[in-house]
Amino acid sequence: MQCYKLTLAYDGTRYSGWQIQPNAPSIQQHLQEVLAMLLGEKQIAVIGSGRTDGGVHALNQVAHFKTARECDLNRLLLSLNALLPHDIRVKKLEMAPLRFHSQYSAIGKEYHYQLYLERVMDPFRRLYSWHVLRPLDLPLLKEAMPLFLGTHDFTSFANEPQKGSVSKNPVRTLRRLDFCAMEGGGRLEFEGDGFLYKMVRNIVGTLVEIAFHRLLIPQILSIFQARDRRLAGRAAPPQGLFLVKVDYPADHLLKESTPIPF
Amino acid sequence: MQCYKLTLAYDGTRYSGWQIQPNAPSIQQHLQEVLAMLLGEKQIAVIGSGRTDGGVHALNQVAHFKTARECDLNRLLLSLNALLPHDIRVKKLEMAPLRFHSQYSAIGKEYHYQLYLERVMDPFRRLYSWHVLRPLDLPLLKEAMPLFLGTHDFTSFANEPQKGSVSKNPVRTLRRLDFCAMEGGGRLEFEGDGFLYKMVRNIVGTLVEIAFHRLLIPQILSIFQARDRRLAGRAAPPQGLFLVKVDYPADHLLKESTPIPF
Repeated sequence: MQCYKLTLAYDGTRYSGWQIQPNAPSIQQHLQEVLAMLLGEKQIAVIGSGRTDGGVHALNQVAHFKTARECDLNRLLLSLNALLPHDIRVKKLEMAPLRFHSQYSAIGKEYHYQLYLERVMDPFRRLYSWHVLRPLDLPLLKEAMPLFLGTHDFTSFANEPQKGSVSKNPVRTLRRLDFCAMEGGGRLEFEGDGFLYKMVRNIVGTLVEIAFHRLLIPQILSIFQARDRRLAGRAAPPQGLFLVKVDYPADHLLKESTPIPF
Repeated sequence: MQCYKLTLAYDGTRYSGWQIQPNAPSIQQHLQEVLAMLLGEKQIAVIGSGRTDGGVHALNQVAHFKTARECDLNRLLLSLNALLPHDIRVKKLEMAPLRFHSQYSAIGKEYHYQLYLERVMDPFRRLYSWHVLRPLDLPLLKEAMPLFLGTHDFTSFANEPQKGSVSKNPVRTLRRLDFCAMEGGGRLEFEGDGFLYKMVRNIVGTLVEIAFHRLLIPQILSIFQARDRRLAGRAAPPQGLFLVKVDYPADHLLKESTPIPF
């Protein structure tokens, strides 16, 4: 038995999300089907570092699977990309120890959320950002950001996990939250040890409420304290969100697993 | 009667091109239908600066139309964008003199062509670049570029115009041709007084043949001289091509036409 680590990029537009669901296209299902076919196995379980919702994108999602079949890493990577839809790409395929688990071994994650603020939407960004049409008070948004940094109980910023999700400790540590200006808008960058369900989108929605002057900065503290999801802002729409990176301990791969040359 | 200049961005993926065709979705048709509806006219002819093929994109295509109906520029811009599909956006709406013609008044154009050269395609660029999988000799490609600069008979790099196209003088002046490195590949930037049908894609295809070592640099001169389309490289695929800018004389707009504030 051998464990393999997959690094994936996908455009979430056409999918109902990462996770397999009946009668809805998912990234996990495509990967499982193609891997089972290529490895000649009845079924291959592909476990992701976390679920992304419908419309959410990934630049470097991580997943793992186990198989006893022998694999040529290079050939398997090429075959996967030949058979997967063009909006799902396997960027890397590496060997990991059997104890590696894409979700439980993760020690950090990075998400970006893109805002588009011009009057007329750029048609090339329509599927990759939230078009906020009302003027935003950006200095106020930036002033509110540090209140989310550090270790907190994020219950007020987390939705109930979907059926089948493991119930979780609601305390998370947000290590970095930056606003980076981009042409036509900006990008909120989140780095932390982990994120609750819809936590990034709920924080973005709350920051935008503040920048609309519909919520005051001091209210954030009472929202945290209330541990009540209904008090925070509405979730920002999915298409602005990108899972950018999943971090693991430095020694999480098998030594024999070298990068594949061109 | 008043003439209006439209500046448009569109994602060409879903369209069979700019021009109206029976039983195929076109950008021109959407614009004509929405404008006729908004202006309460039976028909509005929207004339573009040039045709873009199916899959080709535009950052600033220019078109014009004429109407005797009174227009509030600001309201019409908002209404157009409210009714057009999200992959077609009107960026500007300005008043031009009646003599203005988006095609015949143009004095220059800029096109970009994006190449993606990494082994695994970036899923977010799949619809906006040509994925060239074989290694390219980029220094050789750059060495060949200056041979296309200046004034030439470009017959060997032009396809027969589509039915209904005006037959054209095949002499054009290419003022600028640069290669700009981008993450994962590069962009060829073309600026000239005008371009024949498929000229940019045919030059890109020829440059890539040179960078594959399948065509030699001195052959370019004989290809020019032969005035025979069959000798040059195959057209590069449409999805890498962007119409970036159409230039007009400085005084081509009416003075009353000021930019619309947010």
